[in-house]
This record gives sequence, structure tokens and C-alpha cells, in this order.
Amino acid sequence: MKLVISKQTLVSALQIITPITDKSSSKPILSNFLLKATGTDSEGRVEFSATDYEISIQGEFPARVEQEGTVCISAKRVLEICREFLSDEVNVGADEQLWVSLAGGPARLRLPSVEIGLYPSMEIMELPNRFRISTTELKRSIQLTLFATLTTETRKNLMGVCLQLDSGGNVRFVSTDGHRLAQVSRKVELIAGEDPPEVIIPRKSLLEMQRVLDNSEEMVEIAFDERNLLLTSGKMVMTTRLIEGKFPNVEPVIPKDNDKTISVNRERVVNALKIVSIMSNDKIKPVKLTLSSGKMRLESEQAEYGDVADELDVEGYQGEEMSIGFNARYLLDVFNEVSPSETVEMKMKGPLNPCLIQIPEDSGFLSVVMPLRIEW
Amino acid sequence: MKLVISKQTLVSALQIITPITDKSSSKPILSNFLLKATGTDSEGRVEFSATDYEISIQGEFPARVEQEGTVCISAKRVLEICREFLSDEVNVGADEQLWVSLAGGPARLRLPSVEIGLYPSMEIMELPNRFRISTTELKRSIQLTLFATLTTETRKNLMGVCLQLDSGGNVRFVSTDGHRLAQVSRKVELIAGEDPPEVIIPRKSLLEMQRVLDNSEEMVEIAFDERNLLLTSGKMVMTTRLIEGKFPNVEPVIPKDNDKTISVNRERVVNALKIVSIMSNDKIKPVKLTLSSGKMRLESEQAEYGDVADELDVEGYQGEEMSIGFNARYLLDVFNEVSPSETVEMKMKGPLNPCLIQIPEDSGFLSVVMPLRIEW
Repeated sequence: MKLVISKQTLVSALQIITPITDKSSSKPILSNFLLKATGTDSEGRVEFSATDYEISIQGEFPARVEQEGTVCISAKRVLEICREFLSDEVNVGADEQLWVSLAGGPARLRLPSVEIGLYPSMEIMELPNRFRISTTELKRSIQLTLFATLTTETRKNLMGVCLQLDSGGNVRFVSTDGHRLAQVSRKVELIAGEDPPEVIIPRKSLLEMQRVLDNSEEMVEIAFDERNLLLTSGKMVMTTRLIEGKFPNVEPVIPKDNDKTISVNRERVVNALKIVSIMSNDKIKPVKLTLSSGKMRLESEQAEYGDVADELDVEGYQGEEMSIGFNARYLLDVFNEVSPSETVEMKMKGPLNPCLIQIPEDSGFLSVVMPLRIEW
Repeated sequence: MKLVISKQTLVSALQIITPITDKSSSKPILSNFLLKATGTDSEGRVEFSATDYEISIQGEFPARVEQEGTVCISAKRVLEICREFLSDEVNVGADEQLWVSLAGGPARLRLPSVEIGLYPSMEIMELPNRFRISTTELKRSIQLTLFATLTTETRKNLMGVCLQLDSGGNVRFVSTDGHRLAQVSRKVELIAGEDPPEVIIPRKSLLEMQRVLDNSEEMVEIAFDERNLLLTSGKMVMTTRLIEGKFPNVEPVIPKDNDKTISVNRERVVNALKIVSIMSNDKIKPVKLTLSSGKMRLESEQAEYGDVADELDVEGYQGEEMSIGFNARYLLDVFNEVSPSETVEMKMKGPLNPCLIQIPEDSGFLSVVMPLRIEW
């Protein structure tokens, strides 16, 4: 194998695939990636691919290929060292003893190639349900739902974002950890799909998908069946296994008749929530919100080590004073993720009813946060 | 107690003193600081002070004082919460039950004060040996020596920087961990000192001193005896205990007749050392430097997991090819700390002799790095 590739391309490709290569020593072969050179000089192509069995990524990039071939080498070492190269191009070569060399100017890295037959094979499947979505909208939808997924292993079906597609091209992303919920509805360009199944995309795959989308073209295609999901962006393809299990029906949890609506300034609320939550030593950061005409007061519990309170203006609240408790961290998460929205709407009913959170800029988004029972 | 202080002043003062307040729970009282208000409205002053028994810091700042008083409260909580306040000023008050309140606009923090008599007392001593040095020079001297101090507890007398002052106003900062050495000589303004002792300033105190110096006036004063050192910058005073013990005589370690001098580009060497040291799994990152006319080659050992090499231009080397081994990390430390110097001079003798490192901009600085015996 012999080829010349731009250093920028090599580093970008490795930044996307290295996070899925395995750092643990239990399966050392998964710390490698496949580098495959095909074509001839002017139409040469290099394919990068890696898998951790759950997620696979393949990407094809232009290169000047002198001699075709495939090698399987350590992703982390190639990334860490090649990114320090001062040259614009990297010369890659492999001899028959399968030592691979990567040279950038006078700097040269030499690595042994693993026998490529030992590397798990990845195949790109044809999947029946397919739609196209803009990269910006997909990124935003992931950002607006990922925070509400469950991070502990207690309920596997909540450790990801549920994707629902109907035959009219309406797609819905929903997540919940039992204490809060986030949902984004979008209209997409349906390509194929008759009665598509509801599927759950693991949070780890969504984190990786965000990296792929950072390097994507304007539109991407998503295809899926019950078990696998495939994201295609130009010459880059990411495949992921889906979480087996049924996602709960969240419809009954979304409040329909919360009549106490207030508008607040997002940044000011984030500031007040930070101030109030610093005080608490707990993992749960209880905060008491007290609404009165035009004002919202936030308070931590009075403790022997002290307490803290803040007050800010709200629009829209009329009626009697009402107090309601929340985990400040849950409110902070929503208020942070809906950035850069200036205004946030909170719709409440009573001290024991969930709060509905929306933003004026995006009627397809909603979040629900369960209240905390507080007795102070 | 009742006063108004600028939020900026409060936060800056706490950023300096909070790192020395104790985070461990073994001596909970040391997590607090003393806040003392004196004077009247137009000439009011607030003194911040904290100690961890080893290091003490006191600083005085202007404030509008309505009622004098002293409280002792958690440094970390006040810093973390007051820094989020949106107001320009903070109102501080304490009632007789010793609840202290800090309010910034509508946000308000309430903390219990510890009985101030329980907090360890700090006194500012008169120390016999004193000199004045510019803040910039002192900061640079600390930076150029701190990296070569010992970080493990194996030899206590090497866990700091040795300060030597002579009666002519020449001051020398020296550090060594047994594998490398750094030394800075400066001319200072001697105020008092007859036969001043050689003292060792702990590295922890120097780290804290850097923070104090970041907020210092142009010139600072240092005073010391065998056991204590005192840094005065305007209204801010830092006291530190010194390390007991004798610092080794490093004079014989500094090479006098290293005749192979090369000039190298600092950034290029840092780049090559990074490339070569990434490859090594060891804590010691052995690198082989091979000098030939006009060139220096850097190589890692050839291992089953691969190897890496780089080559760069050097000025000044004539003679036969010579190879010498080093711990790449030690070279990286010196080359990084002498930034922004463009050129670095390396003076060598043979493969088993220490290397002397100097920079053209600062004839008062030198560093010595011991070679590694390498057999590849």
C-alpha cells in the first residue's frame, strides 16, 4: 500500500472514529481501525472504518493512491502522533511484513498492522424505513432530548432516545428518565416506510452521532429497522445497534391543562438556579419556587450550614402565591439546552403537578419536569 | 457588622485565599476565612485572612463600612455563590446570633459564622533579611525553577526552591529533583541582611505565591529568616513556613566544559519531543538524540507496538555523529517553561555527560538535564 493524504482529512476522520475504538484491554483488536486504499492516482480513495460491535463508522475520502492495499492499525496512536505533524500531507506506506509507516515531513511513525482478517467485518445493510433530515435539525433534536435520558443501568429502555416516525413524515424524538421528559417533533422528508417501528437509539450512539454530524453535509439520511439504524452523510456512514425493549408511552405524562403560564428570561433563571443549587450538598438539589404577581422567588432549604435565595421578574402570573419544589439540576439542564432561546415558558398547575417547559422559537419542543415534594 | 464592598474585589480576594483553605474534613475550621471590617464610611477597610498553618494570607481592601465587626465563614461557599451575583456591589451584614448575610441585588446568601476565637491566629513577623524585586521578575524566576522541584515525598529538602541571597544583593533560585536542575540568578534591591541563611520555599507555597503575584503591584518585598518567609505586595501579605533541611550544593553538577553547543528552534523541538514521547508507554519517555552536522534526529526505541522518529535543523554542531539519551519529559519541561524564547542553546559533552540548557534572552537562567543511558 502506498498513498498520500491531506493531514487535515486524516486527522478529522480519526477524530470521528477514534472515540469508538476500544480503550479497554479486554479486546485489544478493537483499538484499531481499517485503512483501505483503492483506485488509482487521480481517482484514489481512502476508506477509514472502525467498529466496537455496537457502533460502526465508515468514511471515504480522496487521496493520491500509488498502490492499493488495506492495513489495520492503532487509531489512538495514529491520531495523537499525526496531529502533531507539521506537514500538510501524510505519506502512508506498508511493506509486506506489514509494518505501516506514516510520514509527515521529517517526522515518521512506524506501526505494526494487525492481520486484517481478524478485524470484525462491518456490512452496510439495506433498511426499510428511511427519511432525510437537515443536519442542523437532527443535531438540535439530539441536543434537546439527550439530556433527559437515563444514565444509570436501572432501566435499559430509558437509556436512549425513542424515535417515532409516521407514514406522513412526522418524526418524534422522546426521552425520559422517569423524573423528566423531553420531546421534539419535526416534519421530515420520508423516503420509505410502511408502519415503521418505534425504536430506541442508545445515548452512547447519539453522542457519537453528534461528532459525525459536526462533519456532515447539509442533509443526512436515516434508515432503520427494529434492530439497526444507519446514518448516511455523503461518503460517511454510521451504523448502530438499537436498544431492545419497549419505550413507555409518555403521552399521559404530558400535562394538557396547566393553566398557570409564566415567561422568564432564560439566562436570569440559569443564574438564579446556579446560585441556589451551589448551596446544597445533596445530589438532588432541591429548590423551592414561589410565584406571586410578577415575581418568582427561588430558595434553598434553610440548613445549619446556611441558605440562599434569589428573586426575579416573570411575566404572565396572576393569582395567589404558589410554591412548588424541583430538583434544580433538572431545571438547569432544560434551561441550558434550549440556549440560545431568550425566553422560556413554564406552564404549571399546582405544587404536585408536573411543569411543562416550552420555548417560543420552537413549537415542536417540549419538556416536562416532575415536582419535588418539599416541606419547608 | 455592616458594609458594602465591590463584587470584583470580593471575588478577587477570595480567589487568592480560597485555595489555601482546607477542603479536607479533618480540620473543618480551616475551610473558613476571617472577614474584618474597620474604619468608618469613607475610610472603611475590609481585611480578608486565611491560614492552613503552613501558609497565611492577609489582604486589605477599601469598603463602605457602616458598622465594624469580624466574622469567620466558609471561603468556598462565599466565592462560588458571590461570583454568580449579577450586581456590582455586595452588601455584607451580621446579626448578633452570628448569621452572616451577603446580598448582591435580589440574591442573598446566609451563612453561620464560626466563633472567631477558634480560628488560628496569624501574626506578621519582623524578619531580618529583606529585599525588593519586581513582580514580573519574581514570577518568571518561580516559573523557571518550579518545574524541576521534586513532587514525591522521598527527599523533603528537594520539594521546593532554594533561595540564596548574598550581601551584595544577588539572589539565586535553585531547584533539583536529582535528575535535572534549574537555576535563576537576579540582581535585587537589598534592604537588610547580614549573612542571610539559605532557605527552601515549599513548592505548594510557590504555587500560591504565583496567584498572589497575579494580583500584585509592580514591586514586592520578600523578608525571611530560617523558618519563615513573608511576601508583601501593597496591602497584601503572604507568610509561609520554610522547609527545614539543607539544600544540596549543586555547583559541581553544573557542567563547565561542555563544548558541543547547538542552537535549536524552541517550538520545533517541543513539537518533535511531543511526537517522540507519545509513543512510549513508560512513565520515563526515553528519546535518543543523534547529532550530526546541521541536524538533530530524535527517535523512540523500536518496540513491537511501533516507533517514531523526527529530524530537525540545528545550528553550530560540527564534529562526529553523537547519540545521547534523555527522558523526553524533562526536556519538554524546560523547553516549555522558557517560552516565549525563540531559540534554545543546548551544551553537551558526551553521551554520559549532563546537558546544559540556556536561552540567549536571559543569561541568569540555566538548566541541567542528566542523560539516560540507552542501548539502542
